[in-house]
Amino acid sequence: MFIHSVYFWLAKPESDDDRAALKAGLESLRSVDAIHHVEIGVAAPTRRPVIDHTYDFALMMTFTDEAAHDVYQVHPIHLAFVEHCKHLWSRVQIYDVATK
Amino acid sequence: MFIHSVYFWLAKPESDDDRAALKAGLESLRSVDAIHHVEIGVAAPTRRPVIDHTYDFALMMTFTDEAAHDVYQVHPIHLAFVEHCKHLWSRVQIYDVATK
Repeated sequence: MFIHSVYFWLAKPESDDDRAALKAGLESLRSVDAIHHVEIGVAAPTRRPVIDHTYDFALMMTFTDEAAHDVYQVHPIHLAFVEHCKHLWSRVQIYDVATK
Repeated sequence: MFIHSVYFWLAKPESDDDRAALKAGLESLRSVDAIHHVEIGVAAPTRRPVIDHTYDFALMMTFTDEAAHDVYQVHPIHLAFVEHCKHLWSRVQIYDVATK
């Protein structure tokens, strides 16, 4: 399995409109059929020094393999999301995990 | 759902023994029944500036809710893992995500 986790920091976290727009953009990705499973969330209330809770949205996707992830990366729905939403974030942090 | 993602950096990445010991410790966590689902993996081959691929192991767990995660945190199997393996890592980075 291939797990693609993306953390987003809003450029204007004070803007409810921007937050709603990024949320809507993230939700649009659910329709990409190359994805096995997708979760969209926010930072949980847990607070410890080793926890980074500063992001605004988390997008976590599983794919059957890296090839399926590669299909997602160039899928028109994903490219449209990046094009329409990239002005909304100031930082993106990704972790791609390969499991047995 | 509550998603608990932990990235581990080995203190001695050149040590195959340490790598195997941490892997075994992570595998021991699968038996904690408070966990809904667990994945253990390594950095995928993807390379882009926004991807952090420098960690040695990823531990990704889902829980039905934060209360189940809290049970895991103080579970004897988890506490034993930390006690027996904490000398193996130099850094741990956690992201806790709450989904609808």
